[in-house]
Amino acid sequence: MWKKLIESVPNVSEGRDREAIAAMAAAMRAVPMVRLLDVQSDPDHHRTVFTLVGEPDGVVDALLALFASALPRIDLRRHRGEHPRMGAVDVVPLVPVRGVTMADCVALARRLGQEVWERFRVPVYLYGEAAARPERRDLAEIRKGEFEGFPDKIQRAEWAPDFGEPAVHPTAGVTAIGAREFLIAFNVNLGTSDLGVAKAIAKAVRGSSGGFRYVKALGISLAERGIVQVSVNLTNYKKTPIPRVLECIRREAARYGVSVVGTEIVGLVPQEALDQVAEYYLALERFSPDMVFERRVQEALG
Amino acid sequence: MWKKLIESVPNVSEGRDREAIAAMAAAMRAVPMVRLLDVQSDPDHHRTVFTLVGEPDGVVDALLALFASALPRIDLRRHRGEHPRMGAVDVVPLVPVRGVTMADCVALARRLGQEVWERFRVPVYLYGEAAARPERRDLAEIRKGEFEGFPDKIQRAEWAPDFGEPAVHPTAGVTAIGAREFLIAFNVNLGTSDLGVAKAIAKAVRGSSGGFRYVKALGISLAERGIVQVSVNLTNYKKTPIPRVLECIRREAARYGVSVVGTEIVGLVPQEALDQVAEYYLALERFSPDMVFERRVQEALG
Repeated sequence: MWKKLIESVPNVSEGRDREAIAAMAAAMRAVPMVRLLDVQSDPDHHRTVFTLVGEPDGVVDALLALFASALPRIDLRRHRGEHPRMGAVDVVPLVPVRGVTMADCVALARRLGQEVWERFRVPVYLYGEAAARPERRDLAEIRKGEFEGFPDKIQRAEWAPDFGEPAVHPTAGVTAIGAREFLIAFNVNLGTSDLGVAKAIAKAVRGSSGGFRYVKALGISLAERGIVQVSVNLTNYKKTPIPRVLECIRREAARYGVSVVGTEIVGLVPQEALDQVAEYYLALERFSPDMVFERRVQEALG
Repeated sequence: MWKKLIESVPNVSEGRDREAIAAMAAAMRAVPMVRLLDVQSDPDHHRTVFTLVGEPDGVVDALLALFASALPRIDLRRHRGEHPRMGAVDVVPLVPVRGVTMADCVALARRLGQEVWERFRVPVYLYGEAAARPERRDLAEIRKGEFEGFPDKIQRAEWAPDFGEPAVHPTAGVTAIGAREFLIAFNVNLGTSDLGVAKAIAKAVRGSSGGFRYVKALGISLAERGIVQVSVNLTNYKKTPIPRVLECIRREAARYGVSVVGTEIVGLVPQEALDQVAEYYLALERFSPDMVFERRVQEALG
């Protein structure tokens, strides 16, 4: 039905007030040509992650509706949570899904950034593939200092916003809007309680310290299970696939006499990424999505 | 759009005469509520395998159209091919896909068997899940003796057809109609030219000689590549999954110092079977098809 499809996963700094979260979801649901797939709130992080898909224009309209709904409901001056944040609507990534290029998403991020500044007076930073400067590709670099540090940071010439004046919105801070590939959150659980092992392996596999280019990774403790976890974000599964990262983690763990006891995918995963796993471990000599029965049926039924 | 969906994979004893094959395909394509997904002809086997899906009534109508088209075009008295056969339309499996149970497919196989006898005077044997006697579950048991041996076999009380009189159709022989799960053809290539190794492994993994219940397997030679292959049919991938069989083959091969050099899937494979592979090798602690992005999008777009 819809020929062009993009995904957006806006992160909002409200994870406790159910009514406020429901109001934001309702604001997006009211927009035509877009569907809200998922809402995940974390009270400890005091943060909610919405997943929406739709026609590009529908997604932009829904995101503007989210700003309109979130801004009067969130006051960052009173916000305390575990997750770092700099804005009421903290970050808005745009992801190409079907019939849309990364360049289209970059253009859309710029259009959205311009409108957010004009309508809501929230300064906007472009990040990821939409970044106008190389040091702004990495969201973590932009967010350094958080809401509390931004009144100073925004006045430094090198941190002038991409849209808007160098003055933080008093209650909503600043927002990062960007374009990126589908992000896969993939956790690998290790049969040890030694957090040092998880941290060492995370360092070995993440791109920033010499590991795989499209991997971000942290070592964390799963206290109630008495084990540790390498928590991985794959920012481009097409170029750094899940099984290659898992096998690298398995080898590193073996150096410490530790086993992989299980893995988890958090949130959604593209079918292509799972098919990649099957192709990798089966060592399939020829694989094409055309071989999947359901796809052939869907094509045949038009 | 179509709520109930079944698959059928009729095998016809004609793999050389392109016009005849095209006429049979056209006869099925003319039927509403059914789609022809695939046509694979093998001149050496002198056999064509059609893959169709559709609403149960549409599939039955298309199969009757296939009989009407195939019977005047095929004379088994002059048929010579490598593949064993007993009928012009040799075998017709019905496979539940969506909104249909195995019991529905068994009922459908009976209805089709009755009609094939009444309209075409071809005696019908029910096989697989539709078998009325345990010894008829296995198609190979029914087919023993082939077309040439059937005039005698059919007169033995224990081989009386399930539909029709105990007399072979003069040019079309007899037909097996049944119900089964989706069949996956999965080949494992070994880094050796020793056919004995492939045969020994095939014997170890196939159900009939003590291996996995839903596995049929043969050892064959891939002469032009100088290697051998364990050619596997998985008749119920839900109960005997691909990765378990592959890992068993890998272990057996290691006993001979032989490696698995690659695998192949022949024809179509259900998405669920590939997801099973990903889940197995990742040791995913929780996996649900709901985690697949495309499925959520499809559901959301309704």
